[in-house]
Order: sequence, then structure tokens, then C-alpha cells
Amino acid sequence: MNAVILSIGTELVRGLRLDTHAADIARAVTALGVDVIRHETVDDDDGAIAAAVCRAAAEADVVIATGGLGPTADDCTRHGLAEAMGARLVAHPDAVAHLDAWAAARGKRISESNRVQTLLPDGAEPLPNPIGTAVGIAVRLGEAQVFCLPGVPGEMRAMLQESVLPRLENAAPGRVTRVRTVRTFGLPESELGERLADLMAAGRPTRLGTACHTGVIDVHVHASGPADEVDRLLGADAAAVRERLGDAVFGEGEETMASAVADALRAAGATLALAESCTGGLVAAKLVAVPGMSDHLLEAVVAYANASKVDALGVPESLIAAHGAVSEPVVRAMAEGARRRTGASLAVAVTGIAGPGGGSPEKPVGTVWFALADANGTDAVCERFPGDRALVRERAALYALNMVRLRLRARAIGECQ
Amino acid sequence: MNAVILSIGTELVRGLRLDTHAADIARAVTALGVDVIRHETVDDDDGAIAAAVCRAAAEADVVIATGGLGPTADDCTRHGLAEAMGARLVAHPDAVAHLDAWAAARGKRISESNRVQTLLPDGAEPLPNPIGTAVGIAVRLGEAQVFCLPGVPGEMRAMLQESVLPRLENAAPGRVTRVRTVRTFGLPESELGERLADLMAAGRPTRLGTACHTGVIDVHVHASGPADEVDRLLGADAAAVRERLGDAVFGEGEETMASAVADALRAAGATLALAESCTGGLVAAKLVAVPGMSDHLLEAVVAYANASKVDALGVPESLIAAHGAVSEPVVRAMAEGARRRTGASLAVAVTGIAGPGGGSPEKPVGTVWFALADANGTDAVCERFPGDRALVRERAALYALNMVRLRLRARAIGECQ
Repeated sequence: MNAVILSIGTELVRGLRLDTHAADIARAVTALGVDVIRHETVDDDDGAIAAAVCRAAAEADVVIATGGLGPTADDCTRHGLAEAMGARLVAHPDAVAHLDAWAAARGKRISESNRVQTLLPDGAEPLPNPIGTAVGIAVRLGEAQVFCLPGVPGEMRAMLQESVLPRLENAAPGRVTRVRTVRTFGLPESELGERLADLMAAGRPTRLGTACHTGVIDVHVHASGPADEVDRLLGADAAAVRERLGDAVFGEGEETMASAVADALRAAGATLALAESCTGGLVAAKLVAVPGMSDHLLEAVVAYANASKVDALGVPESLIAAHGAVSEPVVRAMAEGARRRTGASLAVAVTGIAGPGGGSPEKPVGTVWFALADANGTDAVCERFPGDRALVRERAALYALNMVRLRLRARAIGECQ
Repeated sequence: MNAVILSIGTELVRGLRLDTHAADIARAVTALGVDVIRHETVDDDDGAIAAAVCRAAAEADVVIATGGLGPTADDCTRHGLAEAMGARLVAHPDAVAHLDAWAAARGKRISESNRVQTLLPDGAEPLPNPIGTAVGIAVRLGEAQVFCLPGVPGEMRAMLQESVLPRLENAAPGRVTRVRTVRTFGLPESELGERLADLMAAGRPTRLGTACHTGVIDVHVHASGPADEVDRLLGADAAAVRERLGDAVFGEGEETMASAVADALRAAGATLALAESCTGGLVAAKLVAVPGMSDHLLEAVVAYANASKVDALGVPESLIAAHGAVSEPVVRAMAEGARRRTGASLAVAVTGIAGPGGGSPEKPVGTVWFALADANGTDAVCERFPGDRALVRERAALYALNMVRLRLRARAIGECQ
């Protein structure tokens, strides 16, 4: 069984609002073993909606649409659906009863504009809305089942769970589709692709795909079939991916670089101090996004101005004068200063040129120095990141966290030997 | 001139990653007077891509696709495009030169798998990629111009700006569609809606819509027609919106709360210090996202652990013991400590309970104390924010920045009188 997901709304088509419903629905139906073929986003326009519904119904077994069921003039999903069916809109007694009950329960008057929400294409089935005034609409169009849900997030989610997913549960009896995601940082995509080439080859029972975002590359392993078999295939492939990619792998699924570092700090009973210049608090903010870090993240100093590097971190002014704020001696002094002032077991410092200004031939925009100080001494490394200010800062923050992760990992392995 | 936007990637179709590119592109081309008809999201599959490209090219003047140009086996946009054109893939000399230059500049080896990125459908034009290895692809298919860009966000954005938008600038001679966005913080949506009710009524030459996200409410004013007329209408409505919403308005268009604060700091020649607990560096990171803040943001201390509040900010341990870290006396002492240690003209402190743990009946999750210290003394305020940890922290960071904005605004008005 396959599906097409439709999102209806001018604000979506014009990019004024981000569509999160299509992704939520896609995950929910994929988990039931339904193959999502594609998504489509169309305007609040009768003709555009009718065309999209017809196109989707001709291609898929299931069509799930959201949006355009409200009471205002720009809501016209019911009209578009009626046009697609060649049906007229008629007041449905269950929809009328729902609206009256909704108003009665709240002591509200039903406005004339709300009445449009009782109109369904002739022959359609209303889907109960446990929260708001807009009932959903289920129809059969050719061979396809079509479900229209309101775009209001809480209503959409409740109705998807209560009225749509149960009808798809026997969509693929004995068959599920599952995805397992292995998350990596630091390997170039081309090298990652080469290490996984045989696993990505066509004709295998799993399908592997990669997705990059700001230095993180996710490897998604997909499989469909009986649940036991799927879990066995995903487990085997995930293990193979982890083994091939080694310490570039920082986690799976919902784990983030920050949660991986948090876990490693907890496991090691280690404490961390941060000295951030160009990242400006981003490294700390990512770690604090993980609950319960206050025993491990002792302090972060955002020493963005040079005076703060001197006063708060004890970086000698002469070092900054001689080498510049973005330099190996300064980043080392920042890390050591942060460790000294807090007594943390580990300290990491970041200083770089995030752009757009401040670059030079020797230190172009994207140049970032990192240092990690611990009881064994201080390591420093320079990286050059591509992209704009936001991208350089994001990459640098992830890189700094990854340094902590790799150091704690090396220590843990060392301790086991 | 109209456009269809395609997003290519199995991870998008299955909802594993949220598609933000389609919305970004939609806003950018709408601003040029291009009517976006619809978006479509399809699988990493030659046939699916070819079908979507053909469908879009038959319907629209411009097709803009993102994703599937990477070096791994699941990247097959170039194959799908070639199939749609009935063309074969050939190495393009400009793409080969780009890849060689990219590698030479970085002292890197080009892997065999990267070489696939030099293959373009016969007759296609490569679009330069200023950041990564994947050139974009421009082709004409029937009457339509088709542009394929990589899915890596920084690369996509740069190439859209540099290679695609300039070609669409004469898209709709004599007619433009423009959206002017007035950005607000702090007013409830219902009150905002009441203040703007007459401007949002049907039948006016402009169309107003609102969009909320983490405390910010944007008011979008749309108009289409000759440029002069559109600008006059938008100017009049934006002025009316600003007047009705007063100091809740922090900017327009691409301005952010942080850029508004940065502008106000520059205009006032003021300096700022930050003391952050639950926001964990988020306030600083937002400000550092604005280039050139090092003369104004003197320092931020992420005093997440209590010891850091004592040692770095001079908060008396007895205050924390008596009132708790999330309390008015502590937040005042944090702000005053940050100001004292840096000599900044303004200091802001934030301490709160972001959740999921740590709440109590008196101080539930979402409770956040703020203080602002300057030469006139220290003000403190407590807010209670809804939502999960991420939402509470984001709201709190914006709230802290907004305090700085309002204080500098009040001073500027005071000085004018």
C-alpha cells in the first residue's frame, strides 16, 4: 500500500510557514508499512486542490491531506475535493450535530461562517474532531481512500491517531517499514560513501541513504517486511555501518552530538569548562539543551571581546598582540585559563573568524582554532570551515563538542586496556 | 511567471528530516514577483525524479529542485533529470575544473565517487558552487527553465542567491508580489488580532496574515500589482501596523531580535555583559550571530553550575542557600556581578527552570527570573513560559534580549525629549 501526502495552504506555498505536518504524517504511516511516494503542497484554491487530489488518487492507495477546513473565506479544501469527485456539497447531519454539540458544550453561538464546516461532498463520511469545529472528511475516489484533516496541529494529530491510522493498520498485514539512523561527524561524505559502497548497492534487502547537515552526516537504513526480519536486517546493517565508520559515529536516532558528549561526561564523571569566542555561547547552549548538565558543565566564558580573553581567562595581552586573537598560542591560553579558573577536568576553547569581515590571506574567513586542555596537557588544532557566518559557527560548535567526545572515548578505551 | 519547487530525498519523503528549503526558495522567488504554484517532495529514485520534473516543467515556467546531487549512490537527481530530458550524462569540463580547483585549494584528493559530480545531462549548464564540490545544473525542458541545486543548506542558499535569483529578476514585467513583514514580541496573538482587525478584513487591496513562533508574532502584509502601487500599499499598511502595535514591534523583514538589539547597542554606544544560567549561552550566541558585536558584547558568563554563580559572578552563597538559584535576589546579584566584573553599561542575567525536571509547586517548570542592571539600578522580573525545555530556553533568550531593546529604546526616547 502506498500514499501521497497533501498540504494545503497559501502560507505554505509561499514559504511563510514551515510545513511540519507532512513529515509527521509520513513517519506515522511509514511505521505502519505504508510506502509514502511523495508530498505535494498546494494553494488555497479550488482548482489547484482538485487537480492535486485527482493526481494523487490516480497514483496512490491512500491520500492524506491537511489544511483548508477552517471557517474563513480562504479555506476551500471541501470545495476542491467536491470538484475532484464531481459531487456537490451538502450539509451532513453528523457534522451538523458535531458543531451544535461543540457550541452547546462551550455555551457559544455558532456563527454563519462556521456553518460551512458542516458541508461535505455528497457521499463523504465525516471524521470526528475531538477538539475543534472542523470535522475531517473521508471519501473514496477511484481506487483510493482520501482523508482530509484540519491544519490546526493539535486537531490534525488527534484525528490522524484516532481516525486515519487505525484504518491503515491492516494496510500491510505482517509487514512493517522501519528506519534506523546512524549519526556521524567528521568524515567527508565521499569517503563515507566509499566505506559503505557495498551496503548501499542495489539489490540488498535494506536500503541505505545519507543526509548531510552542517557537518553531521546521517546514515538512514530502511527495511520493509515482517517485523522480526526487519529488526534483524536493521541491526546487522547498523552494526556494519558503525564498524566501518568507527569513531565518526556519535550516536543513533534522536541522539545529538551534545547528548553524546553529555553521556560521555556522565560516564567518565568528568567536568568541563568552555572558553568561546566566535561561537559566542553556542557550544554551551548545545550542552545546556541536554537536561541535568549542571554537575558537569562547570562554566562557559564567552570571551568575545579581547579584553575578556585577558581579564577572564588570563590570556597575556602580549600573546594577542604578537599572534592575533585567532592563533594557536591564544587558543591554548584560553583553554588553559578556563581550566585553571574552574578546576574542570577538561577545558575547550574556540577562537576563529566567522565572517563576513575579519579575514586575511593568511587567516581567511572560516579559520577556527580549537584547544583542549586536560591533566595531560593541551592539544590545539586549526580547521577551515566553508560557508557563511552561521554555518562556520555551527560547524565550529559541533567540532568543539566532538573534540570532547573523542577525548573521553579515547580515555575510556585506554582505561579498558 | 510561475514556479514549482521540488525537494528530492527519501529522508524528506519519509519525514525523517524537515524540509526547510522549499519554504526558503518560495519566499525568495515570491519576492521577485514569481507565483509559486506548488511544492512537491519526491524520493531519491530516477523514475520518480524524472516524472516530477516532467510534471513540473509542463506546468510552470521555472522549476527549482534541491537535493540528490551528492557523491553517494543514493544521490540520483542528475540521473532523473537526464531521464526527463532523454539525454545522457557526460562529464562537463567546467564541472571537472571546479572539482579539481576545489581539491587543489584544500590539498585534498578527489575520490572516484566525487567524479560522479562532474556528470551533467548533455546540453546542461553547470551552476557554480562557491562552497562545496557539487555544481548545480541548469537546463531548459520544453518551455521551462529547470534549476537543480544541492541540498546542503549553505550551498543551496549561496547558489540560489548567486545563480538562480538573478535570472528570475525580470520574471513578471510590470507586476510584482511583495510581502512586508512586521515582527513583534510580547503581545498575545488575540490582542494583536483585535488591534489589526480592520486591516485584516476582506476586500482590502492588501492581505494580512499572522504567524507565531516561540513568542515572536510576524504580521505579513501581501500585495500584488505595479511595483510603485504595491510599495505604497505595503508602506501604508506597515506604518499602520507599527503604530497599532507600538513598542512590541522590534523590526521588519529579515531583522531578528538580536539584530535589533545590536543596532540599539551601536546607536547608543552602549556595552553589554550577560550572566546566563538556564539559557546556557543562547542569549550570547544570538548576539554573536550578528557580525561586529565585539565592541559591544563585552562578555557572557554561562554560570550554569551554582559554584560558577558564586565564583565568577560574586553571588553570595548565602543568597542561593536562602532563596534558591532561581530567585529574585540571585538574578539581581548575577546581573550586578556581571556588570561589576566587566564595567559594561548594561548587564542582563537569566536564571530559570527549563525542565523537564527541577520544577516545584512554587516554581514550576517554565519559571524564569530576569534582571537588568545599569547605572540607574537593577530591575528584576519573573515570567512563566509554556512548552518544553527547548521552547522555554528560546523564549527566555528572546525575552532577555527584548529587555535590553526596550531599555535602550526608553533611554533614546528620554534623551530626545
